[in-house]
Amino acid sequence: MAKKILIIAGDYVEDYELMVPYQAMLSIGLEVDVMAPSRNKGDIIPTAIHDFVGDQTYTELRGHNFEINVDYNKVDPEAYDALYLPGGRAPEYIRLNQRVIEITRHFFDKNKPVLAVCHGIQILTTAGVLKGRSLTAYMAVGPDIELAGGTWENVSVDEAVVDGNLVTSPAWPGHPAMLNEFYKLLGITISHG
Amino acid sequence: MAKKILIIAGDYVEDYELMVPYQAMLSIGLEVDVMAPSRNKGDIIPTAIHDFVGDQTYTELRGHNFEINVDYNKVDPEAYDALYLPGGRAPEYIRLNQRVIEITRHFFDKNKPVLAVCHGIQILTTAGVLKGRSLTAYMAVGPDIELAGGTWENVSVDEAVVDGNLVTSPAWPGHPAMLNEFYKLLGITISHG
Repeated sequence: MAKKILIIAGDYVEDYELMVPYQAMLSIGLEVDVMAPSRNKGDIIPTAIHDFVGDQTYTELRGHNFEINVDYNKVDPEAYDALYLPGGRAPEYIRLNQRVIEITRHFFDKNKPVLAVCHGIQILTTAGVLKGRSLTAYMAVGPDIELAGGTWENVSVDEAVVDGNLVTSPAWPGHPAMLNEFYKLLGITISHG
Repeated sequence: MAKKILIIAGDYVEDYELMVPYQAMLSIGLEVDVMAPSRNKGDIIPTAIHDFVGDQTYTELRGHNFEINVDYNKVDPEAYDALYLPGGRAPEYIRLNQRVIEITRHFFDKNKPVLAVCHGIQILTTAGVLKGRSLTAYMAVGPDIELAGGTWENVSVDEAVVDGNLVTSPAWPGHPAMLNEFYKLLGITISHG
Protein backbone atom coordinates (compact mmCIF):
# COMPACT_ATOMS: atom_id res chain seq x y z
CA MET A 1 0.00 0.00 0.00
CA ALA A 2 1.23 3.49 -0.81
CA LYS A 3 2.75 5.31 2.13
CA LYS A 4 1.21 8.60 3.23
CA ILE A 5 3.35 11.71 3.68
CA LEU A 6 2.50 14.92 5.56
CA ILE A 7 4.02 18.25 4.50
CA ILE A 8 3.75 21.30 6.79
CA ALA A 9 3.79 24.55 4.79
CA GLY A 10 2.81 28.17 5.38
CA ASP A 11 2.73 31.55 3.63
CA TYR A 12 6.03 32.26 1.80
CA VAL A 13 7.28 28.72 1.99
CA GLU A 14 10.04 28.39 -0.61
CA ASP A 15 8.47 27.70 -4.03
CA TYR A 16 10.68 24.82 -5.21
CA GLU A 17 11.02 23.33 -1.73
CA LEU A 18 7.28 22.82 -1.51
CA MET A 19 6.37 21.87 -5.09
CA VAL A 20 9.34 19.75 -6.18
CA PRO A 21 9.23 17.17 -3.34
CA TYR A 22 5.40 17.27 -3.37
CA GLN A 23 5.10 16.42 -7.06
CA ALA A 24 8.14 14.10 -7.07
CA MET A 25 6.56 12.04 -4.26
CA LEU A 26 3.20 11.93 -6.07
CA SER A 27 4.91 10.88 -9.30
CA ILE A 28 6.23 7.67 -7.69
CA GLY A 29 2.85 6.82 -6.17
CA LEU A 30 3.07 8.22 -2.62
CA GLU A 31 0.03 9.95 -1.12
CA VAL A 32 0.84 13.47 0.06
CA ASP A 33 -1.16 15.87 2.23
CA VAL A 34 -0.01 19.47 2.52
CA MET A 35 -1.22 21.41 5.57
CA ALA A 36 -0.61 24.97 6.83
CA PRO A 37 -1.73 26.47 10.16
CA SER A 38 -5.22 28.05 9.91
CA ARG A 39 -5.56 27.02 6.27
CA ASN A 40 -8.17 24.62 4.95
CA LYS A 41 -8.40 22.39 1.88
CA GLY A 42 -8.59 24.60 -1.22
CA ASP A 43 -7.01 27.63 0.47
CA ILE A 44 -4.19 29.27 -1.47
CA ILE A 45 -0.84 30.17 0.08
CA PRO A 46 1.76 32.40 -1.60
CA THR A 47 5.27 31.01 -2.08
CA ALA A 48 8.67 32.73 -2.17
CA ILE A 49 11.51 32.28 -4.69
CA HIS A 50 14.82 31.99 -2.86
CA ASP A 51 17.79 32.08 -5.19
CA PHE A 52 21.55 32.01 -4.67
CA VAL A 53 23.24 34.64 -6.84
CA GLY A 54 26.49 35.31 -4.98
CA ASP A 55 25.23 37.69 -2.29
CA GLN A 56 25.76 36.90 1.40
CA THR A 57 22.22 35.52 1.48
CA TYR A 58 19.57 34.56 -1.08
CA THR A 59 17.34 36.91 -3.04
CA GLU A 60 13.57 36.70 -2.60
CA LEU A 61 10.88 37.10 -5.25
CA ARG A 62 7.17 36.20 -5.25
CA GLY A 63 6.58 32.64 -6.48
CA HIS A 64 3.59 30.56 -7.56
CA ASN A 65 0.47 30.11 -5.47
CA PHE A 66 0.00 26.71 -3.84
CA GLU A 67 -3.32 25.04 -3.06
CA ILE A 68 -3.49 23.40 0.38
CA ASN A 69 -5.14 19.96 0.20
CA VAL A 70 -6.09 19.16 3.82
CA ASP A 71 -7.90 21.06 6.60
CA TYR A 72 -5.33 22.02 9.26
CA ASN A 73 -7.56 20.98 12.18
CA LYS A 74 -8.28 17.54 10.69
CA VAL A 75 -4.63 16.45 10.52
CA ASP A 76 -3.96 13.36 12.65
CA PRO A 77 -0.22 12.60 12.61
CA GLU A 78 -0.95 8.92 13.40
CA ALA A 79 -2.36 8.63 9.85
CA TYR A 80 0.99 9.46 8.23
CA ASP A 81 4.11 7.37 7.62
CA ALA A 82 6.52 10.30 7.30
CA LEU A 83 6.90 14.07 7.56
CA TYR A 84 8.47 16.65 5.22
CA LEU A 85 9.32 20.21 6.29
CA PRO A 86 10.12 22.60 3.42
CA GLY A 87 11.98 25.89 3.97
CA GLY A 88 11.56 29.51 2.93
CA ARG A 89 10.22 32.10 5.34
CA ALA A 90 7.28 29.99 6.53
CA PRO A 91 9.02 27.83 9.18
CA GLU A 92 10.18 30.79 11.28
CA TYR A 93 6.56 31.72 12.02
CA ILE A 94 4.63 28.45 11.75
CA ARG A 95 6.87 26.98 14.47
CA LEU A 96 5.07 29.39 16.83
CA ASN A 97 1.95 27.25 16.29
CA GLN A 98 1.79 24.64 19.06
CA ARG A 99 0.02 22.10 16.84
CA VAL A 100 2.91 22.24 14.34
CA ILE A 101 5.32 21.42 17.16
CA GLU A 102 3.13 18.58 18.51
CA ILE A 103 2.73 17.03 15.08
CA THR A 104 6.49 17.24 14.47
CA ARG A 105 7.28 15.58 17.82
CA HIS A 106 4.97 12.67 16.96
CA PHE A 107 7.24 11.61 14.08
CA PHE A 108 10.31 11.65 16.34
CA ASP A 109 8.49 9.87 19.20
CA LYS A 110 7.48 7.09 16.78
CA ASN A 111 10.81 7.13 14.89
CA LYS A 112 9.04 7.67 11.55
CA PRO A 113 11.07 9.15 8.66
CA VAL A 114 11.42 12.95 8.75
CA LEU A 115 12.73 14.98 5.81
CA ALA A 116 13.61 18.67 6.22
CA VAL A 117 15.42 21.24 4.09
CA CYS A 118 16.87 24.73 4.51
CA HIS A 119 14.88 26.79 7.04
CA GLY A 120 12.47 23.88 7.57
CA ILE A 121 14.99 22.83 10.21
CA GLN A 122 13.85 25.83 12.34
CA ILE A 123 10.76 23.78 13.20
CA LEU A 124 13.01 20.97 14.47
CA THR A 125 15.15 23.29 16.61
CA THR A 126 11.97 24.64 18.24
CA ALA A 127 10.42 21.17 18.70
CA GLY A 128 13.37 20.13 20.89
CA VAL A 129 14.08 16.96 18.92
CA LEU A 130 17.68 17.57 17.87
CA LYS A 131 19.67 16.67 20.99
CA GLY A 132 22.61 14.50 19.90
CA ARG A 133 21.52 14.49 16.24
CA SER A 134 23.73 15.22 13.21
CA LEU A 135 22.08 17.21 10.46
CA THR A 136 22.46 20.04 8.00
CA ALA A 137 20.41 23.16 7.13
CA TYR A 138 20.89 26.48 5.35
CA MET A 139 24.13 27.84 6.88
CA ALA A 140 22.31 30.64 8.74
CA VAL A 141 20.36 28.04 10.73
CA GLY A 142 23.55 26.31 11.90
CA PRO A 143 23.83 28.28 15.19
CA ASP A 144 20.24 27.33 16.11
CA ILE A 145 20.98 23.65 15.54
CA GLU A 146 23.93 23.92 17.93
CA LEU A 147 21.74 25.74 20.51
CA ALA A 148 19.22 22.90 20.21
CA GLY A 149 21.91 20.34 21.07
CA GLY A 150 22.54 19.05 17.58
CA THR A 151 25.59 19.10 15.31
CA TRP A 152 25.42 21.13 12.09
CA GLU A 153 27.15 19.34 9.22
CA ASN A 154 28.66 21.74 6.70
CA VAL A 155 27.92 19.89 3.45
CA SER A 156 27.53 21.07 -0.15
CA VAL A 157 24.09 22.46 -1.09
CA ASP A 158 23.38 19.46 -3.30
CA GLU A 159 24.11 16.90 -0.59
CA ALA A 160 21.93 15.25 2.06
CA VAL A 161 22.75 14.12 5.61
CA VAL A 162 21.10 10.99 7.04
CA ASP A 163 20.97 10.36 10.81
CA GLY A 164 18.59 7.54 11.73
CA ASN A 165 15.06 8.60 10.75
CA LEU A 166 16.16 12.14 9.84
CA VAL A 167 17.20 13.30 6.34
CA THR A 168 18.26 16.94 5.83
CA SER A 169 19.74 19.11 3.10
CA PRO A 170 20.95 22.75 3.06
CA ALA A 171 18.68 24.05 0.27
CA TRP A 172 16.69 23.14 -2.84
CA PRO A 173 19.70 22.03 -4.95
CA GLY A 174 19.77 19.08 -2.51
CA HIS A 175 16.30 17.75 -3.44
CA PRO A 176 17.47 14.82 -5.61
CA ALA A 177 19.90 13.56 -2.94
CA MET A 178 17.51 14.04 -0.01
CA LEU A 179 14.52 12.51 -1.81
CA ASN A 180 16.61 9.49 -2.82
CA GLU A 181 17.61 8.90 0.84
CA PHE A 182 14.02 9.50 1.99
CA TYR A 183 12.69 6.89 -0.46
CA LYS A 184 15.20 4.36 0.93
CA LEU A 185 13.98 5.04 4.50
CA LEU A 186 10.40 4.45 3.29
CA GLY A 187 11.43 1.05 1.88
CA ILE A 188 10.83 2.05 -1.73
CA THR A 189 12.90 0.33 -4.42
CA ILE A 190 13.30 1.71 -7.93
CA SER A 191 14.42 -0.64 -10.70
CA HIS A 192 15.63 0.66 -14.04
CA GLY A 193 14.58 -1.56 -16.96
CA MET B 1 22.23 1.16 -16.22
CA ALA B 2 20.54 4.49 -15.57
CA LYS B 3 18.79 5.93 -18.58
CA LYS B 4 19.87 9.35 -19.86
CA ILE B 5 17.32 12.11 -20.44
CA LEU B 6 17.73 15.31 -22.47
CA ILE B 7 15.76 18.45 -21.56
CA ILE B 8 15.63 21.39 -23.98
CA ALA B 9 15.16 24.69 -22.15
CA GLY B 10 15.63 28.39 -22.90
CA ASP B 11 15.22 31.83 -21.32
CA TYR B 12 11.86 32.17 -19.52
CA VAL B 13 11.10 28.49 -19.53
CA GLU B 14 8.40 27.89 -16.89
CA ASP B 15 10.05 27.58 -13.47
CA TYR B 16 8.23 24.48 -12.15
CA GLU B 17 8.12 22.80 -15.56
CA LEU B 18 11.89 22.80 -15.76
CA MET B 19 12.91 22.15 -12.14
CA VAL B 20 10.25 19.69 -10.95
CA PRO B 21 10.73 17.04 -13.65
CA TYR B 22 14.52 17.65 -13.65
CA GLN B 23 14.91 17.02 -9.91
CA ALA B 24 12.21 14.31 -9.79
CA MET B 25 14.07 12.37 -12.50
CA LEU B 26 17.41 12.81 -10.71
CA SER B 27 15.85 11.68 -7.41
CA ILE B 28 15.00 8.25 -8.88
CA GLY B 29 18.47 7.82 -10.37
CA LEU B 30 18.06 9.00 -13.97
CA GLU B 31 20.84 11.06 -15.56
CA VAL B 32 19.55 14.36 -16.91
CA ASP B 33 21.23 16.91 -19.19
CA VAL B 34 19.58 20.31 -19.64
CA MET B 35 20.54 22.24 -22.78
CA ALA B 36 19.44 25.61 -24.21
CA PRO B 37 20.36 27.10 -27.60
CA SER B 38 23.60 29.15 -27.46
CA ARG B 39 24.07 28.35 -23.76
CA ASN B 40 26.99 26.40 -22.33
CA LYS B 41 27.50 24.37 -19.17
CA GLY B 42 27.37 26.72 -16.17
CA ASP B 43 25.40 29.42 -18.00
CA ILE B 44 22.38 30.75 -16.12
CA ILE B 45 18.95 31.11 -17.72
CA PRO B 46 16.06 33.04 -16.14
CA THR B 47 12.77 31.21 -15.59
CA ALA B 48 9.17 32.45 -15.54
CA ILE B 49 6.40 31.74 -13.01
CA HIS B 50 3.17 30.90 -14.82
CA ASP B 51 0.21 30.70 -12.48
CA PHE B 52 -3.50 30.10 -12.99
CA VAL B 53 -5.54 32.57 -10.96
CA GLY B 54 -8.84 32.70 -12.83
CA ASP B 55 -7.92 35.11 -15.63
CA GLN B 56 -8.33 34.07 -19.28
CA THR B 57 -4.64 33.19 -19.31
CA TYR B 58 -1.88 32.72 -16.72
CA THR B 59 0.01 35.44 -14.86
CA GLU B 60 3.77 35.73 -15.31
CA LEU B 61 6.37 36.61 -12.69
CA ARG B 62 10.17 36.22 -12.66
CA GLY B 63 11.23 32.84 -11.25
CA HIS B 64 14.48 31.24 -10.09
CA ASN B 65 17.65 31.13 -12.16
CA PHE B 66 18.56 27.75 -13.63
CA GLU B 67 22.09 26.52 -14.35
CA ILE B 68 22.49 24.76 -17.71
CA ASN B 69 24.58 21.59 -17.37
CA VAL B 70 25.67 20.77 -20.94
CA ASP B 71 27.21 22.76 -23.81
CA TYR B 72 24.56 23.22 -26.51
CA ASN B 73 26.90 22.38 -29.39
CA LYS B 74 28.07 19.14 -27.74
CA VAL B 75 24.61 17.57 -27.51
CA ASP B 76 24.39 14.33 -29.49
CA PRO B 77 20.79 13.07 -29.41
CA GLU B 78 22.02 9.49 -30.03
CA ALA B 79 23.43 9.56 -26.48
CA TYR B 80 19.98 9.99 -24.88
CA ASP B 81 17.18 7.53 -24.17
CA ALA B 82 14.38 10.10 -23.97
CA LEU B 83 13.50 13.78 -24.41
CA TYR B 84 11.58 16.21 -22.19
CA LEU B 85 10.27 19.57 -23.43
CA PRO B 86 9.12 21.97 -20.65
CA GLY B 87 6.84 24.95 -21.35
CA GLY B 88 6.77 28.62 -20.47
CA ARG B 89 7.75 31.26 -23.02
CA ALA B 90 10.95 29.51 -24.11
CA PRO B 91 9.52 27.01 -26.66
CA GLU B 92 7.98 29.69 -28.90
CA TYR B 93 11.43 31.08 -29.68
CA ILE B 94 13.80 28.11 -29.26
CA ARG B 95 11.79 26.23 -31.91
CA LEU B 96 13.26 28.75 -34.38
CA ASN B 97 16.63 27.10 -33.75
CA GLN B 98 17.17 24.40 -36.39
CA ARG B 99 19.25 22.23 -34.06
CA VAL B 100 16.36 22.09 -31.56
CA ILE B 101 14.10 20.81 -34.34
CA GLU B 102 16.66 18.25 -35.56
CA ILE B 103 17.24 16.92 -32.07
CA THR B 104 13.50 16.64 -31.47
CA ARG B 105 12.95 14.74 -34.72
CA HIS B 106 15.64 12.21 -33.74
CA PHE B 107 13.53 10.99 -30.80
CA PHE B 108 10.49 10.50 -33.05
CA ASP B 109 12.54 8.86 -35.83
CA LYS B 110 13.91 6.36 -33.28
CA ASN B 111 10.60 6.02 -31.39
CA LYS B 112 12.27 6.95 -28.09
CA PRO B 113 10.05 8.29 -25.25
CA VAL B 114 9.17 11.99 -25.52
CA LEU B 115 7.59 13.96 -22.69
CA ALA B 116 6.21 17.47 -23.26
CA VAL B 117 4.07 19.86 -21.24
CA CYS B 118 2.15 23.09 -21.83
CA HIS B 119 3.84 25.30 -24.47
CA GLY B 120 6.64 22.71 -24.86
CA ILE B 121 4.30 21.21 -27.45
CA GLN B 122 5.03 24.23 -29.71
CA ILE B 123 8.36 22.58 -30.48
CA LEU B 124 6.53 19.44 -31.62
CA THR B 125 4.10 21.35 -33.86
CA THR B 126 7.08 23.04 -35.55
CA ALA B 127 9.07 19.81 -35.86
CA GLY B 128 6.32 18.26 -37.99
CA VAL B 129 6.05 15.12 -35.88
CA LEU B 130 2.36 15.28 -34.84
CA LYS B 131 0.55 13.97 -37.92
CA GLY B 132 -2.08 11.47 -36.72
CA ARG B 133 -1.02 11.79 -33.07
CA SER B 134 -3.32 12.34 -30.06
CA LEU B 135 -1.98 14.66 -27.41
CA THR B 136 -2.73 17.53 -25.09
CA ALA B 137 -1.13 20.93 -24.35
CA TYR B 138 -2.06 24.25 -22.76
CA MET B 139 -5.45 25.07 -24.32
CA ALA B 140 -4.03 28.01 -26.31
CA VAL B 141 -1.72 25.61 -28.19
CA GLY B 142 -4.66 23.40 -29.27
CA PRO B 143 -5.17 25.15 -32.65
CA ASP B 144 -1.49 24.67 -33.53
CA ILE B 145 -1.74 20.95 -32.80
CA GLU B 146 -4.68 20.70 -35.20
CA LEU B 147 -2.74 22.69 -37.86
CA ALA B 148 0.14 20.23 -37.43
CA GLY B 149 -2.16 17.28 -38.16
CA GLY B 150 -2.64 16.08 -34.59
CA THR B 151 -5.69 15.83 -32.34
CA TRP B 152 -5.79 18.01 -29.23
CA GLU B 153 -7.27 16.14 -26.25
CA ASN B 154 -9.13 18.42 -23.83
CA VAL B 155 -8.14 16.85 -20.50
CA SER B 156 -7.92 18.23 -16.98
CA VAL B 157 -4.71 20.12 -16.11
CA ASP B 158 -3.59 17.35 -13.76
CA GLU B 159 -3.95 14.59 -16.34
CA ALA B 160 -1.56 13.14 -18.92
CA VAL B 161 -2.22 11.75 -22.40
CA VAL B 162 -0.14 8.81 -23.71
CA ASP B 163 0.08 8.02 -27.44
CA GLY B 164 2.81 5.52 -28.23
CA ASN B 165 6.17 7.08 -27.32
CA LEU B 166 4.60 10.48 -26.57
CA VAL B 167 3.40 11.66 -23.12
CA THR B 168 1.85 15.13 -22.78
CA SER B 169 0.07 17.22 -20.15
CA PRO B 170 -1.64 20.65 -20.27
CA ALA B 171 0.43 22.37 -17.56
CA TRP B 172 2.53 21.89 -14.41
CA PRO B 173 -0.31 20.49 -12.25
CA GLY B 174 0.04 17.43 -14.52
CA HIS B 175 3.65 16.65 -13.56
CA PRO B 176 2.88 13.69 -11.27
CA ALA B 177 0.66 11.97 -13.87
CA MET B 178 2.97 12.65 -16.80
CA LEU B 179 6.14 11.62 -14.95
CA ASN B 180 4.48 8.41 -13.79
CA GLU B 181 3.59 7.50 -17.42
CA PHE B 182 7.06 8.53 -18.61
CA TYR B 183 8.72 6.24 -16.04
CA LYS B 184 6.60 3.34 -17.31
CA LEU B 185 7.71 4.02 -20.91
CA LEU B 186 11.33 3.97 -19.68
CA GLY B 187 10.77 0.54 -18.12
CA ILE B 188 11.23 1.78 -14.56
CA THR B 189 9.40 -0.08 -11.79
CA ILE B 190 8.81 1.40 -8.35
CA SER B 191 8.00 -0.97 -5.46
CA HIS B 192 6.62 0.32 -2.17
CA GLY B 193 7.96 -1.62 0.82
